[in-house]
Amino acid sequence: MRQYECFELTFTGPEPEGSWAQADLRAEFACEGIIREVDGFYAGNGFYKVRFYPDRAGVYSWKVTGAVTAEGEEVCQAADASARGIVRASGQHFTYDGGGWYRPFGTTVYALIHQDKNLVDTTMETLEKASFNKVRFCVFPKHYDFNHNEPPFFPFEKKEGGWDVHRPVFAYWETLEARIRELDAMGIQGDLILFHPYDRWGFSEFSREDSLVYLDYLLRRLSAMPNLWWSLANEYDLMPNYNLQDWTDFAGFMAGHDPYGHCLSNHNCMAYWDFSRKEITHCSIQDANVIETPELWEQYGKPVVFDECRYEGDIVHSWGNLSGRELTRRFWTAVCCGGYCTHGETFYSQDEVLWWSRGGVLKGESPARIAFLREIVESLPGPLDFLGDGLGVYTEGQLTAMQEQGAPEAFRKSFFHMAMLNLPRERVRSFLTKERVALGHCGQEAYLKYLERQCPSLTELDLPREGSYRVEVIDAWNMTREVVAENVCGKVQVKLPGREDMAVLALRQ
Amino acid sequence: MRQYECFELTFTGPEPEGSWAQADLRAEFACEGIIREVDGFYAGNGFYKVRFYPDRAGVYSWKVTGAVTAEGEEVCQAADASARGIVRASGQHFTYDGGGWYRPFGTTVYALIHQDKNLVDTTMETLEKASFNKVRFCVFPKHYDFNHNEPPFFPFEKKEGGWDVHRPVFAYWETLEARIRELDAMGIQGDLILFHPYDRWGFSEFSREDSLVYLDYLLRRLSAMPNLWWSLANEYDLMPNYNLQDWTDFAGFMAGHDPYGHCLSNHNCMAYWDFSRKEITHCSIQDANVIETPELWEQYGKPVVFDECRYEGDIVHSWGNLSGRELTRRFWTAVCCGGYCTHGETFYSQDEVLWWSRGGVLKGESPARIAFLREIVESLPGPLDFLGDGLGVYTEGQLTAMQEQGAPEAFRKSFFHMAMLNLPRERVRSFLTKERVALGHCGQEAYLKYLERQCPSLTELDLPREGSYRVEVIDAWNMTREVVAENVCGKVQVKLPGREDMAVLALRQ
Repeated sequence: MRQYECFELTFTGPEPEGSWAQADLRAEFACEGIIREVDGFYAGNGFYKVRFYPDRAGVYSWKVTGAVTAEGEEVCQAADASARGIVRASGQHFTYDGGGWYRPFGTTVYALIHQDKNLVDTTMETLEKASFNKVRFCVFPKHYDFNHNEPPFFPFEKKEGGWDVHRPVFAYWETLEARIRELDAMGIQGDLILFHPYDRWGFSEFSREDSLVYLDYLLRRLSAMPNLWWSLANEYDLMPNYNLQDWTDFAGFMAGHDPYGHCLSNHNCMAYWDFSRKEITHCSIQDANVIETPELWEQYGKPVVFDECRYEGDIVHSWGNLSGRELTRRFWTAVCCGGYCTHGETFYSQDEVLWWSRGGVLKGESPARIAFLREIVESLPGPLDFLGDGLGVYTEGQLTAMQEQGAPEAFRKSFFHMAMLNLPRERVRSFLTKERVALGHCGQEAYLKYLERQCPSLTELDLPREGSYRVEVIDAWNMTREVVAENVCGKVQVKLPGREDMAVLALRQ
Repeated sequence: MRQYECFELTFTGPEPEGSWAQADLRAEFACEGIIREVDGFYAGNGFYKVRFYPDRAGVYSWKVTGAVTAEGEEVCQAADASARGIVRASGQHFTYDGGGWYRPFGTTVYALIHQDKNLVDTTMETLEKASFNKVRFCVFPKHYDFNHNEPPFFPFEKKEGGWDVHRPVFAYWETLEARIRELDAMGIQGDLILFHPYDRWGFSEFSREDSLVYLDYLLRRLSAMPNLWWSLANEYDLMPNYNLQDWTDFAGFMAGHDPYGHCLSNHNCMAYWDFSRKEITHCSIQDANVIETPELWEQYGKPVVFDECRYEGDIVHSWGNLSGRELTRRFWTAVCCGGYCTHGETFYSQDEVLWWSRGGVLKGESPARIAFLREIVESLPGPLDFLGDGLGVYTEGQLTAMQEQGAPEAFRKSFFHMAMLNLPRERVRSFLTKERVALGHCGQEAYLKYLERQCPSLTELDLPREGSYRVEVIDAWNMTREVVAENVCGKVQVKLPGREDMAVLALRQ
């Protein structure tokens, strides 16, 4: 047993008489007076397993009851340097159990595990070389344009008129787990999508009861694996089978039955899920409006992740033909506004292997740029928050506060600003986001200003008057960095080349 | 006297005893029983003038009373081929009094007439060569960044503590009129801005009474000139001197005292003017959200003109450093959504002559592309309306109608569409505009689809099944047109090069 790693106990016992998904098996793990209860699962062939995620080192005593009775003691070693544990929302950002910030730079391969082994291997090799640290993929296979292949196996056995959720296909789950472990070894979080509408087999038509059996089995098997997030659905609002109460109940079930509290959200097509609900850990958004990250943070008070902002590619669908430049922009904008973004790629290919769904190799221009951005962001002393300071970068919440508490004198002096305070809220919001420049900061340690489509020959930074900063001009598209000033502070003017996709970084020396 | 051209009567008389702006002079023009009353004006040096715009050919009898008494008869010749008369809003678009569509492709030179003669001459030469047919400029001089020069003259004489609106500076008005006539000869509408906040001289601080005297004098002098529009303000909402009632009253005054009903609107910085008011002829918008043209048309029922959507340039201000590509996009999007757009250019120059305010020469990349677009659009048999047909291109109003009247069967069949009908209105709007492709049509005669930042390798047109169309692929940036199909109809697939800024035109053969 090792801290932050999945620990597994295996037993033999009689085949379950009833449900194979909800086997009668529980375990208690106790360490220094803290007791955690977990459910075990039937793993086929007369094997029972219990998995456990220890978040502290020490001596654990364990006791298994139900179909198997056993007890024992296990020394949990302190974490390996490479094991960082479960990722959790922390304010506007994410941290590892083992300490340190986790900054999601994700990608999307919906039907990753539903491909032939060779193709999944290729996908894994691609992920190994790429710079993504989160991948969104589905438990169930996918049927959609460019997704017509039959998967090698299904999560459950077929029965007359549907699927028998009480009979898991063990080979499926073992393969899934092996891939999750591979991702873990690469430092990649699996953002596992539990339901989705793109289906020809009937997995999107489970009864409510069967849905809960499925989730229960999934949690028994997977919850002790550190590198997982739960995405209740891809596009919950396109699934006629479930209503809003079902989704609320599924969220409650996941939060209530996951002993470890993995990240949990629900992803929309058109209408955002209500991320303010207590069991939801972060915003998982489908929308292109990354510039509104500060408003979303104000509204929900949780990390903002644009898990789909359209994809780089060339297919006919409007969501699948962004240029690499445009997708790169959305990453920069989201990140400099204090949020995060997720990649996807949809270049048409006659073999219908498009990265966004089936994996394979990456062809686009954005991954290298996203890696470049990630490198910059991870070199900063902490995550970036949006800096609402100056014309056009206020958020609605800041304006409301000024209205209620009285605006600072300098603000009130300008009629422009007074007008802003008195305009209808809806118009203010639209105006503010229109005028906004994505300016992130990490305390007074670092400032990252991204100019996106703006092409100024000059930009200004308003750095603290105390302190000494090194200023770099960054070309987000051509991936160049140039130090243009050292030991500066206060108002600084920075010359720029007058083209799109430029950024300026000021780092405290 | 010639139809659609400004006719002028000049008299001598005693210098007015009171106000020189509101001289006692009226005239009646009668033709075939239709009588029009107009006010004349004092033109200085003992001259009085009456101007009149005849919208029909025929024999006119006229009678002047007040400071001058006179009468006479005048034959009004039928219009010259080149004289097309006043432009008027007509549904979602504009027509000339003399017939035919007017499609605004405007530019902005705020302080056009407040420059040295040489510079204004240069500006006029530039306009002659460029392809703009509307120019926004101010009556009053402008003080702002890059606008520090003193104008050669002012509209009124100075008095202790302000300006004497009862004493017009005749040289100023004569120069203004000469420039308006030059624009007319080039086929360019003057979108004259009557008030604006960027002022160091006090013109933005007129009393309400003085403001009305000024407007009265302006109408007496200028209203008979055919190529003028009235823009009540540039950024009315940044002028602390006037409140909403003042603006409403100014609009009413202009509509009530302009005998000819020139186009009239009021231009915002942050909050749109209420374009639904009856005296407002069209929407004159400052906003970047050109994709929402269909919603604005639904809301106001008047032509939608984005008179500022930011400018091509490289200055530090966020509104003044768009790439030429980006400004070109906004034109294409507005036009294919049934609206119109206005150009502006702000490349920094050490002599502070930036086109957007002081004129001079054009340096940017967008004017040639805007000319290319104008040529295409003017070659169509009529103006373009937005085609709301198919996923993601519905407007809010269309959805509401479907909710109220029942959606078509094909629409209801899809859960996706049903979800759309039941989502909160605000989210639907955001989703629809996000997914929208700018697709304009001219009845069944022409379809123009603009793909903006989308880079598909294939796009689809859903043409009428009856009819025969020629299909062109257009590169809006590189300004190329290629016929890719002839004699096609119904659903047509069109191959594209998978890069940004492409458009497809289908024209009935």
